Amino acid sequence: MRAQPFPPEMEIQEEDYFDYYYDEPGSEPGSIIIDPEALPTHINLIEYNPIKAYKKSDIQPKDCQSCLNNDLVSWADIQGLGSEKILREIAEVFRLHPLILEDVVNVPQRPKLEDCQNQLLIILHCIKPNSNEMGFTSEQISLVLGKNYLLTFQEDAIDDFSKLRDRIKNNQGKVRNLGADYLAYLILDTLIDNYFPVLEDYGERIELLEDLIVADPTQKTLKEIYNIRRELLALRRSIWPLRNLFNQLTREENELISKEVYIYFRDCYYHTIQILDILETYRELASSLMDVLMSSMSNKMNEVVTLLTIISSIFIPLTFIAGIYGMNFEFMPELEWHWGYFLCLLLMLSIALLMLFFFWQRGWFKFYFSKKTKW
Amino acid sequence: MRAQPFPPEMEIQEEDYFDYYYDEPGSEPGSIIIDPEALPTHINLIEYNPIKAYKKSDIQPKDCQSCLNNDLVSWADIQGLGSEKILREIAEVFRLHPLILEDVVNVPQRPKLEDCQNQLLIILHCIKPNSNEMGFTSEQISLVLGKNYLLTFQEDAIDDFSKLRDRIKNNQGKVRNLGADYLAYLILDTLIDNYFPVLEDYGERIELLEDLIVADPTQKTLKEIYNIRRELLALRRSIWPLRNLFNQLTREENELISKEVYIYFRDCYYHTIQILDILETYRELASSLMDVLMSSMSNKMNEVVTLLTIISSIFIPLTFIAGIYGMNFEFMPELEWHWGYFLCLLLMLSIALLMLFFFWQRGWFKFYFSKKTKW
Amino acid sequence: MRAQPFPPEMEIQEEDYFDYYYDEPGSEPGSIIIDPEALPTHINLIEYNPIKAYKKSDIQPKDCQSCLNNDLVSWADIQGLGSEKILREIAEVFRLHPLILEDVVNVPQRPKLEDCQNQLLIILHCIKPNSNEMGFTSEQISLVLGKNYLLTFQEDAIDDFSKLRDRIKNNQGKVRNLGADYLAYLILDTLIDNYFPVLEDYGERIELLEDLIVADPTQKTLKEIYNIRRELLALRRSIWPLRNLFNQLTREENELISKEVYIYFRDCYYHTIQILDILETYRELASSLMDVLMSSMSNKMNEVVTLLTIISSIFIPLTFIAGIYGMNFEFMPELEWHWGYFLCLLLMLSIALLMLFFFWQRGWFKFYFSKKTKW
Amino acid sequence: MRAQPFPPEMEIQEEDYFDYYYDEPGSEPGSIIIDPEALPTHINLIEYNPIKAYKKSDIQPKDCQSCLNNDLVSWADIQGLGSEKILREIAEVFRLHPLILEDVVNVPQRPKLEDCQNQLLIILHCIKPNSNEMGFTSEQISLVLGKNYLLTFQEDAIDDFSKLRDRIKNNQGKVRNLGADYLAYLILDTLIDNYFPVLEDYGERIELLEDLIVADPTQKTLKEIYNIRRELLALRRSIWPLRNLFNQLTREENELISKEVYIYFRDCYYHTIQILDILETYRELASSLMDVLMSSMSNKMNEVVTLLTIISSIFIPLTFIAGIYGMNFEFMPELEWHWGYFLCLLLMLSIALLMLFFFWQRGWFKFYFSKKTKW
Amino acid sequence: MRAQPFPPEMEIQEEDYFDYYYDEPGSEPGSIIIDPEALPTHINLIEYNPIKAYKKSDIQPKDCQSCLNNDLVSWADIQGLGSEKILREIAEVFRLHPLILEDVVNVPQRPKLEDCQNQLLIILHCIKPNSNEMGFTSEQISLVLGKNYLLTFQEDAIDDFSKLRDRIKNNQGKVRNLGADYLAYLILDTLIDNYFPVLEDYGERIELLEDLIVADPTQKTLKEIYNIRRELLALRRSIWPLRNLFNQLTREENELISKEVYIYFRDCYYHTIQILDILETYRELASSLMDVLMSSMSNKMNEVVTLLTIISSIFIPLTFIAGIYGMNFEFMPELEWHWGYFLCLLLMLSIALLMLFFFWQRGWFKFYFSKKTKW
Repeated sequence: MRAQPFPPEMEIQEEDYFDYYYDEPGSEPGSIIIDPEALPTHINLIEYNPIKAYKKSDIQPKDCQSCLNNDLVSWADIQGLGSEKILREIAEVFRLHPLILEDVVNVPQRPKLEDCQNQLLIILHCIKPNSNEMGFTSEQISLVLGKNYLLTFQEDAIDDFSKLRDRIKNNQGKVRNLGADYLAYLILDTLIDNYFPVLEDYGERIELLEDLIVADPTQKTLKEIYNIRRELLALRRSIWPLRNLFNQLTREENELISKEVYIYFRDCYYHTIQILDILETYRELASSLMDVLMSSMSNKMNEVVTLLTIISSIFIPLTFIAGIYGMNFEFMPELEWHWGYFLCLLLMLSIALLMLFFFWQRGWFKFYFSKKTKW
Repeated sequence: MRAQPFPPEMEIQEEDYFDYYYDEPGSEPGSIIIDPEALPTHINLIEYNPIKAYKKSDIQPKDCQSCLNNDLVSWADIQGLGSEKILREIAEVFRLHPLILEDVVNVPQRPKLEDCQNQLLIILHCIKPNSNEMGFTSEQISLVLGKNYLLTFQEDAIDDFSKLRDRIKNNQGKVRNLGADYLAYLILDTLIDNYFPVLEDYGERIELLEDLIVADPTQKTLKEIYNIRRELLALRRSIWPLRNLFNQLTREENELISKEVYIYFRDCYYHTIQILDILETYRELASSLMDVLMSSMSNKMNEVVTLLTIISSIFIPLTFIAGIYGMNFEFMPELEWHWGYFLCLLLMLSIALLMLFFFWQRGWFKFYFSKKTKW
Repeated sequence: MRAQPFPPEMEIQEEDYFDYYYDEPGSEPGSIIIDPEALPTHINLIEYNPIKAYKKSDIQPKDCQSCLNNDLVSWADIQGLGSEKILREIAEVFRLHPLILEDVVNVPQRPKLEDCQNQLLIILHCIKPNSNEMGFTSEQISLVLGKNYLLTFQEDAIDDFSKLRDRIKNNQGKVRNLGADYLAYLILDTLIDNYFPVLEDYGERIELLEDLIVADPTQKTLKEIYNIRRELLALRRSIWPLRNLFNQLTREENELISKEVYIYFRDCYYHTIQILDILETYRELASSLMDVLMSSMSNKMNEVVTLLTIISSIFIPLTFIAGIYGMNFEFMPELEWHWGYFLCLLLMLSIALLMLFFFWQRGWFKFYFSKKTKW
Repeated sequence: MRAQPFPPEMEIQEEDYFDYYYDEPGSEPGSIIIDPEALPTHINLIEYNPIKAYKKSDIQPKDCQSCLNNDLVSWADIQGLGSEKILREIAEVFRLHPLILEDVVNVPQRPKLEDCQNQLLIILHCIKPNSNEMGFTSEQISLVLGKNYLLTFQEDAIDDFSKLRDRIKNNQGKVRNLGADYLAYLILDTLIDNYFPVLEDYGERIELLEDLIVADPTQKTLKEIYNIRRELLALRRSIWPLRNLFNQLTREENELISKEVYIYFRDCYYHTIQILDILETYRELASSLMDVLMSSMSNKMNEVVTLLTIISSIFIPLTFIAGIYGMNFEFMPELEWHWGYFLCLLLMLSIALLMLFFFWQRGWFKFYFSKKTKW
Repeated sequence: MRAQPFPPEMEIQEEDYFDYYYDEPGSEPGSIIIDPEALPTHINLIEYNPIKAYKKSDIQPKDCQSCLNNDLVSWADIQGLGSEKILREIAEVFRLHPLILEDVVNVPQRPKLEDCQNQLLIILHCIKPNSNEMGFTSEQISLVLGKNYLLTFQEDAIDDFSKLRDRIKNNQGKVRNLGADYLAYLILDTLIDNYFPVLEDYGERIELLEDLIVADPTQKTLKEIYNIRRELLALRRSIWPLRNLFNQLTREENELISKEVYIYFRDCYYHTIQILDILETYRELASSLMDVLMSSMSNKMNEVVTLLTIISSIFIPLTFIAGIYGMNFEFMPELEWHWGYFLCLLLMLSIALLMLFFFWQRGWFKFYFSKKTKW
């Protein structure tokens, strides 16, 4: 099982979750800024129709020129955003609007759908659970859907789409019989489905917290609740715009998407809604847990203070009595009584018993004698 | 009465409430995954018109072929989702879209309404109170409404619809005189009405909590409030989509639903609204109870700390005075006074009375002398 | 004045506020369930036109047959929902849809507006303050508005409409000159206006709480705040649907309502909005009061703990010094000094004064020397 | 500067803020109830066109008859709502709908816009800061805009419009060149602008609270926060409906308002939005301040309890040691050591230093040695 | 790095954030009030077409007359709002509506979009981080877009647009090839992009707080959280209206904006949405931090009180025993036993160990022996 309450190393790069790209104020619109750490750009092209399908690896942008004319469905997968020259050549070949190129290259952007010049730009995030620690990683994937072709721009050369490539190669399912719009759907569907395992991790972490919160209502639990709320907020920022995006995709008549494929996009829409549903539920649970933590701390304090009060209330008056008979006055008749000492002890015992009865009656002992609830 | 504050065994499988099905990322759309624990699939067919009605049990998918052609209303009730072959044959006979079959088989899905290819898919949940403990069970029921037929897919072979089958058999009410749309309504109505007894249980649990919260503001009460909030959240996830679903059903003109039946679907819509109303009320009450619990704990602490302060404030100064006259200085004139001891006691008494007066004036005794409120 | 902070008997039937009717799951739609405690059904008929008006008491359903044909405006007031036979006959005479009859008889329903078969069904609640205690009672009133007639179904034989009957009888105001739609308005207006005195009571209870909350931040105050929040929630459930209902009534063109009367329904709409406004204000005030209560308890605790700390911090060190000179070591030079005792007392006094100065400087005495604020 | 944290006399009539008028249930619609304390009614008439302008004071209703026919713009300013006869005559002269008269006379109503019978009724509130204390006063002003005339009904004979009258008299600005609609705008604009100084006072009170809340987190501060929240709630109830009102005025085509004047009403709309913006900001700040107060109290308690713990933890063990050597056992070897007393003192000193080191290490002294933050 | 937890001088003029302009109630609409501290007005004119571009500095209003007629794109940049005469002349030359001039001069206004008389008025704020301290400064910039010209009104002579002027001069990018609408976009884009660095500062301040909040949960942290919430509220007031503004700009067909430029305004819209997204995220984080602070304080108190209880519970009973044997009764048999003293010490030790075991078992030591979490 992946989720652990408090993993040994808490070396998560938390600042990543709220990363975003923004232009230098006053910069030229459409300017692209290459991240010096970005991977060099590679282009893989897959072309297919119901009869044949082939793949070309590491081609040059000008080799894609043919995609626009032939009647095959073309999928140009651009991996790595580090080579400005290649990216600009691709933009030229496919006649991308400068703003589209800007959104594709300057990552991360907010997920969005932009319909411009017979092309549909879809930007969304590929979310994956961290393999060896808690949290998730996020990476931007941009799709440009044209008449007969699909461009995908990926930050990393991840291998999420290998199953899909196999399905094209082996002619499994419907993919070879339908157009670039169905291919776009298959990619979007994969990306949406990626959210579920991440969510499941949070479900498990919340369940673990439910058990821990009473046994150990400390700073660590508090930190974990805060982290979960923080990360769910980041997840929500990434998924929330998709709701609108798919809603637009399914409602607006768009000539790039065929009637047959709409029902598939609607399926994506329902999945997005479901993810948001689960996310909101987790957020509400995490917020309830914060209340529970506060109550739990308050309860713990009650327990501690009650003990202090019981002990103090019994022994402070008794100590006072002992103090009286420790005074050195010359004339203190009781001191001379033969049974004085024992009468004094008896008095003390009575007071102690009276006090205990009072506390028992008010139910102040239940903290100590009730079995520890395993809630 | 079912609701109990804290039932002896707290062995509720809580994780069930937030269960959901999701595709393996990258899997083929329309693929169906048979749960190894699912029951084997049985098909029961009821066919009727105003004049006659008969029932066929445990038939084969191809026996349903006739439903599509004859002018009887057909209700094919498919129980158990464990036999992939039978399910695929049904899909073939009734020409179900692959995505519909996927939603029907891969349970649980979010409730939804899908209008596709002259068929209407309605997915919702059958909610039932747990018979011997708190909480509820949830099971998916899918309806596929066609021109002249209705398919129902159930996870379990529950017997919620036996009364309905009797009404068809005995020609009670209008059911035999109307089409498959009215039959669909009758099933939906039964499923919606199932929510009410579950809600009633929560109403009772909240009422019990209102009594317990002051008498016993402890971890157990806290746990119970959290559980109620958690389960109401799960219930809300199940009922919330229905609001939209029925709203769509009553507003959109759909050729599968006759004018006469619209008013019945509107009735379902109003019932859904009412359930949501009650649910929100309970959620707000549960949230108020959390505030009450916090206040109650705080009040309890005040009570305990006030006692500590009263006892300490009276006896600590007195003990100090006793301490003074317990010192062993050689020259302490008071010790030699004949009435010194009694003057000292008098002084102590005065201080104690002064303190008590001060506390009484500030009203600090009201915790102890006011009759325990039974709120 | 009606509102009292804590009335002597707290015997309010709280569970009533959240009562609602629901069908037995699987029951026949349109089935009516007679509550065994319901009053027997009586029908009073008032018929009028600008010239004449007469009233028939305790008539039979079939006597209403004429209402449908003559050109008088007819108001059939059905009181008591206990006689199934009579209710069914009425439904037959006026051709009520089975679902309408169900909604009318199976009380309480959520307020709603249903337009069906040339009849307009309006369901709402008659709210009245409890005469001898806090809270309110709620009762369903259903109106069926037809072409020339108005049916009202009441649970109880209350006498809210006697003034209205007098106005019809004495031809006061416009009522005799307008149709059944205006009569419906007059009844709705009376029912809406009934909410105001109930709201006023809550306003007074909240004002009383504002005074009590600091003087007496105890369980009773907490209980009262919770009760107010609870009852306002119940009130809101009853009034909220009316907003939509009247909005629909004023916007949709309906042939049963004449142009002249629309402005009156709009007036009802504005009153409903105003009630909701006040209700939300009270809800926010009650929620603020909960915060104030928490702060007030926290402040009280500060006050108590500060005293404890002052007393302990002064006397515990002094007692320690006294303890030192109470030790029985054989060689303790100070004990033999002649002024040792007085030097020791002087030391103690200095420490005490130093401590007091420290506390005074930090302002810890302000709790005790500031005049009790009467906020 | 007007705003003071806690003015000497807290004699604000708080109940005024949530005042509202409601009909006696069952009363005749359109009935008007004269408040016995209302001022007697006076009518002042101003008539003007671009060329001339004159004013008639204290005229009779029938003198207004001419307004309807001549081609001057007429502004009838009705001050005081105490004379039923005069008010009814005005209604007759200007043919006001009974419901309009009711809304105008039975104050205070919720702000609203009603378009009926070629007349536009606008009800809103004139808000003014209290001159000698905190809070504000509210008074209803009703405008009835007709073809060529404007009626204003004021509760009091306030002099808010004297500048406006001067502008008409002296032909300043555009007022004499435009119609009654522009006059209505000028009055509305004045009323809206009246909200700003009141808001500014709340801004100052909140700023004062920000300084006070830490220095003095007591009941008075709590009361002040609660009062501000309460009064902002009242303000919001008065301004919120205006947003909708002006939105309607600017969007709907109304023949009473000329094209030229629409831009001015849009300006009012923007001012209303701005007031709501500021109001919401203040409400959020007041709500944040409540959190700050709670934290501040909690911090104060921490400070107090930490001192108690430090003092107790050091001196209670020491007192115990002193107690041991104060016992009267016959055989206690240490007592007879020559340096026993000094060894004992040394032991005590070591323990005290150890404790102090422990507390210093945990940072528990920072409350006392950090300079008081002036936040 | 700019963000510091608590900068040395806290001399931020906080009241600036919630500044707003409002008219004196009753003042003439369209009147302009010159702020005595406003800078004198200077006009710089840039005119260009694809072929040529020139700049005139410090010209007179009448020199702009030609802009309206020639076919160059003209950008008149008016800096400083201190010279009423010049501003009125500009208004005359460009035929500005009085309300537009009022909005432009009487700063600060709420951001808005006003379409009037063939001109488009856009008001928004130029936000910049404070260079040497925390927080930001805000200044109003107004754009008036006409057929062939653009007016910009700036409070200050800031140099935000120098890069833009260079691009025009050097014919970089598309600016010289497109109209005044594209120029307006470039200015808006720069202003929107200015928000990002300010937001980034808040992100850093929140991150710093996340580290500080547990190590130092004091008044200063509380003050910093409150300040962040306060300033984010101010930022939100400034950015929120832009969302609507750009939405309107992109949806409404406006003849002043060419088809080609719409996609650019849509880009501004997406940036605004993104800023709001980040802002809301920060607001939620700041609000969560307040919860964390409360929990942290509560935890600290638990820690302190637990120590007090442990020490008191062990030593108070022991001191009592010592007190008993310090009494001076004549007959106390134990005192005379030879091993009495040692037996007594043994008894005390046993009690102490028992208590320690009890506390260890309840886990009360974990506060002190667990390594300080660096969360």
